[in-house]
Amino acid sequence: MRIAVFAGDGIGPEVTEQAVRVLQALEINGLELVEGDVGGAAYRKHGHPLPAQTLEIARSADAILFGAVGDFSLDHLERALRPEQAVLGLRKELGLFANLRPATVFKGLEDLSTLRPEVAGKIDLLIVRELNGDVYFGEKGTRTLEDGRRQGWDMMSYAEDEVRRIAHAGFKAAQGRRGKLCSVDKANVLETSQLWRDVVIEVSAQYPDVQLTHMYVDNAAMQLVKNPGAFDVIVTGNLFGDILSDQASMCVGSIGLLASASLAETDGAQGAFGLYEPIHGSAPDIAGKGLANPMATILSAAMLLRHSCGMEAEAARIEAAVAAALADGVKGGDLGGSAGTKEIGDAVIARL
Amino acid sequence: MRIAVFAGDGIGPEVTEQAVRVLQALEINGLELVEGDVGGAAYRKHGHPLPAQTLEIARSADAILFGAVGDFSLDHLERALRPEQAVLGLRKELGLFANLRPATVFKGLEDLSTLRPEVAGKIDLLIVRELNGDVYFGEKGTRTLEDGRRQGWDMMSYAEDEVRRIAHAGFKAAQGRRGKLCSVDKANVLETSQLWRDVVIEVSAQYPDVQLTHMYVDNAAMQLVKNPGAFDVIVTGNLFGDILSDQASMCVGSIGLLASASLAETDGAQGAFGLYEPIHGSAPDIAGKGLANPMATILSAAMLLRHSCGMEAEAARIEAAVAAALADGVKGGDLGGSAGTKEIGDAVIARL
Ligand SMILES: CC(C)[C@H](C(=O)O)[C@@H](O)C(=O)O
Ligand SMILES: CC(C)[C@H](C(=O)O)[C@@H](O)C(=O)O
Repeated sequence: MRIAVFAGDGIGPEVTEQAVRVLQALEINGLELVEGDVGGAAYRKHGHPLPAQTLEIARSADAILFGAVGDFSLDHLERALRPEQAVLGLRKELGLFANLRPATVFKGLEDLSTLRPEVAGKIDLLIVRELNGDVYFGEKGTRTLEDGRRQGWDMMSYAEDEVRRIAHAGFKAAQGRRGKLCSVDKANVLETSQLWRDVVIEVSAQYPDVQLTHMYVDNAAMQLVKNPGAFDVIVTGNLFGDILSDQASMCVGSIGLLASASLAETDGAQGAFGLYEPIHGSAPDIAGKGLANPMATILSAAMLLRHSCGMEAEAARIEAAVAAALADGVKGGDLGGSAGTKEIGDAVIARL
Repeated sequence: MRIAVFAGDGIGPEVTEQAVRVLQALEINGLELVEGDVGGAAYRKHGHPLPAQTLEIARSADAILFGAVGDFSLDHLERALRPEQAVLGLRKELGLFANLRPATVFKGLEDLSTLRPEVAGKIDLLIVRELNGDVYFGEKGTRTLEDGRRQGWDMMSYAEDEVRRIAHAGFKAAQGRRGKLCSVDKANVLETSQLWRDVVIEVSAQYPDVQLTHMYVDNAAMQLVKNPGAFDVIVTGNLFGDILSDQASMCVGSIGLLASASLAETDGAQGAFGLYEPIHGSAPDIAGKGLANPMATILSAAMLLRHSCGMEAEAARIEAAVAAALADGVKGGDLGGSAGTKEIGDAVIARL
């Protein structure tokens, strides 16, 4: 197994370092780690946020462990050169179309949510977000209209096969959980959503054991506040998924603990190619200070072992070690504790 | 003054009835009320959710008091005939481009929010949502690609003048409040957003007294959970505004109390043409039972008097009467009380 490690910007390197230490501590036979540059760090070194050599490393690997990208001091660059393009480029180039974002409140940490503990404590949902289509990757531009006005435009679209494969991912995820799938769209306004809804309904015929519902995105944003515990799996497009998955993460209250996977296939076969990353960003304000909580990245490494390496036992070992460290009060500043980056890494390794 | 009253579907008629009673109780000289059919009710009577005669009534009026539209039993109709098209049609035909959605927690009602009282109690924000552009009104359709796949598509766009007028609305609203404007976009991905951001920055030169910030929509969805009290005015496009304004409303916890205005001009002139409606929907499950809380519609009537009639004193009288009724424990089922629709109307009128 060859794992590409792309640490990126801000706190990316320090949190990734701890996740790598955890992987190494497992002493997995034949696990090879290869580093690559992404984001602002890559731009400064190679003039591009996703250099060709990084993409090559990614293609030669079985999975990617990703830190974070983002660097406000590069915001003046044209969009194609900004750090975030590394994320978008990897998703598109590697066909990482299925983003799995679990949001679950850790037992004992209900108080970290701004939601009432009795509401937050019930959150146990998974957002399955499409990552390769929608208004993200359509044609776009700025033009001057005939009457001289400037106009910015972006084409939103989904083709049936794009919807079908993410719908399957959603239904399969629901089968492995509580059997409920909520498809989120805006079919009362968007043709893209109407096609989305039609295809999801077609696919549902193959999953009679999953209970499918549909919800408009504005209502979904409300229900995630009112009663997030009612959701099991949510499947949605790239743009709505961007918004709702971040909202759901914040409902949990401990962003420093949330991991995510972006997969290139989801057919249940062991060893899907995927990219794994914490959902928090590059947090430039605390970068380099040893203050960042590496747990989300460590949990991302666990997801990597599970989904891309078929190593369920090792994944569970990491997760149990993180849970044990938390239970013993090892908490980063984001969780109201005072443990530093390396201290948390040490604590997890000690409990493996 | 001529007020068009469009009651619509579900609980629309019963809540509007109480708002009309409140308006009549004020005995305003020369206030004329004209009814018109919209939504599913209009479709059943005239074969269209927004019949020509309704549009004529709207055009002849100085303002519209709107109930709610929506009727699941008409969901099988082609989109152009569904109840919601009445809303979209009125917005577009009448140039109602500025949607003002205040979200404030009523004193003493902090406990209705699923957010912790200390978080919910600080919510006092206004969302200024653009209503005439974006992916809502661009070209759209479903087509078959060359390779035979079906594709749904919608064009997203904003032209500079469309952004400029809503930006002015946002800055002016901020001047009348705490002087902070947060413009929400997705400029790291969308050209439409990049133009939006550029124009908002241009306009900001005219409002040196307003503190402007920019936020990506995914982050805004997070911050509305984490610390909604930090927002003063949010200005954003049609699609993001749809999602965020509903999220913010639910954070308040008492949707039965939230009113909204959709204005055709916002130049501070008294008497802007506008449509006023509660933000709750048609609630078919409790329709016709006398259970719906009419307070949001009554408060919409107050906004109507303020923005379209220049009657600040009368608007304030209604708002004070609603607050007094609430303080006296007159609460609908949605607020944990047991007062019925007419009882609430009576209680407000008694306190005018
Ligand atoms: C950085 C940005 C382009 C990206 C997105 O919008 O997808 C991020 O918000 C995410 O969710 O991974
Ligand atoms: C009914 C629907 C078309 C409408 C919208 O999306 O604008 C509604 O959600 C709203 O916010 O008024």
